[in-house]
Amino acid sequence: MQLLKDKILSEGTAVNEDILKVDSFLNHQVDPKFMEVLGDEIARHFEGSGITRVVTVESSGISPAIFTAKALGVPMVIMKKQPSKVLNDHLYQTMVTSFTKGTNYELTMSQKYVGESDHVLVVDDFLANGETAAGVIRLIRMAHATVAGVAVLIEKAFRPGREKIERAGIEVFSLVKISSMSKDRILFADEEDPE
Amino acid sequence: MQLLKDKILSEGTAVNEDILKVDSFLNHQVDPKFMEVLGDEIARHFEGSGITRVVTVESSGISPAIFTAKALGVPMVIMKKQPSKVLNDHLYQTMVTSFTKGTNYELTMSQKYVGESDHVLVVDDFLANGETAAGVIRLIRMAHATVAGVAVLIEKAFRPGREKIERAGIEVFSLVKISSMSKDRILFADEEDPE
Repeated sequence: MQLLKDKILSEGTAVNEDILKVDSFLNHQVDPKFMEVLGDEIARHFEGSGITRVVTVESSGISPAIFTAKALGVPMVIMKKQPSKVLNDHLYQTMVTSFTKGTNYELTMSQKYVGESDHVLVVDDFLANGETAAGVIRLIRMAHATVAGVAVLIEKAFRPGREKIERAGIEVFSLVKISSMSKDRILFADEEDPE
Repeated sequence: MQLLKDKILSEGTAVNEDILKVDSFLNHQVDPKFMEVLGDEIARHFEGSGITRVVTVESSGISPAIFTAKALGVPMVIMKKQPSKVLNDHLYQTMVTSFTKGTNYELTMSQKYVGESDHVLVVDDFLANGETAAGVIRLIRMAHATVAGVAVLIEKAFRPGREKIERAGIEVFSLVKISSMSKDRILFADEEDPE
């Protein structure tokens, strides 16, 4: 998606081989109209595939996910990164290791909002090592729901996330694929020809 | 706002005098179209007051805030609850004590996205003791920006949040005000006549 590539090139910063800062339009400041365009694009790709829920993970996934859910006319469900005191009955939980942040956390979803009749689209901001997405898929499967696909705005195609998810038989759709990065240099993979 | 009152009465659960669970449409599962109606309502109230930024706190505030920001045609800025490795240069930070969760956290905002020419609307899901809102206001003032108001979906009017914010000379706008709660019982205050 050229629009997102342009935005990344004009506003993003490659800190090193692994870290891309897109704080100005995605992770810290968010342009709602731009985010709606991205959500609409994801929804268009999955239109007609019978999706009943969009699931995301707090908190950077919420902005693209809510517009995807709106375009598809379905609810969004936000998976929590730790159990809170308020949300404590009948939970699915799984441990996720985050490479980027060097942390482990408990990914948590209420049993109420995803069930066996659901066909779920996972939406997140980034796909890199796929640890978060894999955790989300585990929770969706604990709920005996089916996974329609994993959609992300930015895929780090030099990381094994896509391979891991596709090996589980699940489609990965990304709006842009980055084939490599180094300090102040970002190379995109052809969107039609994944690495 | 009758629509939100009805939703709270039909889907919310008062756990005790303090905790209202609205997981089915706000904190865990989110209905995007309903959230857009709420965001539009907040935007309508503050229309024409020269707002340049909507600021919220991750993660339950993001859904109403993004639709408010969209309706006002301004960016949303998400304050983070802890410093991350990626977001580490030129930050404003302040400590916030959360009564509900019994925790302290560092509220964090980059110096890049709110500056002295900004007039900022704070949007969040709940207002109770006002600790979070007070922290957000501290960060906005560190940035030498002005605060247009604090808008929340649900105000616990039996808690001192409104008083605390109004004492700082800042308008509080809430879509519904709860005057008291007990297990399975929710009483609303008149919207025109705050407790």
